[in-house]
Amino acid sequence: MTQIDADNQSTNLPIYESTDLSVHQSTSLPSALRWDDRGLITTVVQDVASGQVLMVAWMNVEALELTLATGETHFWSRSRGELWHKGATSGNVQRVVRLWADCDADTLLVQVEPAGPACHTGAVSCFFTTVE
Amino acid sequence: MTQIDADNQSTNLPIYESTDLSVHQSTSLPSALRWDDRGLITTVVQDVASGQVLMVAWMNVEALELTLATGETHFWSRSRGELWHKGATSGNVQRVVRLWADCDADTLLVQVEPAGPACHTGAVSCFFTTVE
Repeated sequence: MTQIDADNQSTNLPIYESTDLSVHQSTSLPSALRWDDRGLITTVVQDVASGQVLMVAWMNVEALELTLATGETHFWSRSRGELWHKGATSGNVQRVVRLWADCDADTLLVQVEPAGPACHTGAVSCFFTTVE
Repeated sequence: MTQIDADNQSTNLPIYESTDLSVHQSTSLPSALRWDDRGLITTVVQDVASGQVLMVAWMNVEALELTLATGETHFWSRSRGELWHKGATSGNVQRVVRLWADCDADTLLVQVEPAGPACHTGAVSCFFTTVE
């Protein structure tokens, strides 16, 4: 077991200077997205202020529409088989700042301002276990 | 169409001060991970220096073992049905700095130093399309 200090994940996270020369573009949804055979799309949640990756979850069309309509993240819980408004019970909602689709439109990145920890363990991020 | 300026994704990415009080821990692999019914695990790739989320791909056990053994990212290409050493042809390899599993061990986050753009389009990140 290696103990990793609490802010190791965030080491070296300066404001970066983009060298991305591609044309940024926007799209309307959800028809432009590629949903998997379960009707879901993988969604990465990132803290827009810190850059920390908070969690990965899945959206269906309804979750995405609710996310866009309310400005707070909604997901499809694969384990519970139900829609899930993140923070509805804990209060740790995630306010959506910006939503991105990747180049082949089968993954989303949502940049948020979180009201509290993302993880059900109470951790800021679900990614607190290093793999070696 | 809304034109988004090139560094919009990175707006407000200061070095964050972690308030994550959870115990950080490490694990040995791949037995501790939860592979899906295709034998794959969702993997988020993040630039460790900028915090930018570069891409999402999938690993199988062999891709993970090669990633850990070589220190460069390897994935399983679902479309081509073959192992994929990222950057093997383009030169845009991703040197692994740190690898994380999430709280329920069914998603990975790999923080890398990329030798070049992550996206096949030449973009630094595959996430250059905003969803509205």
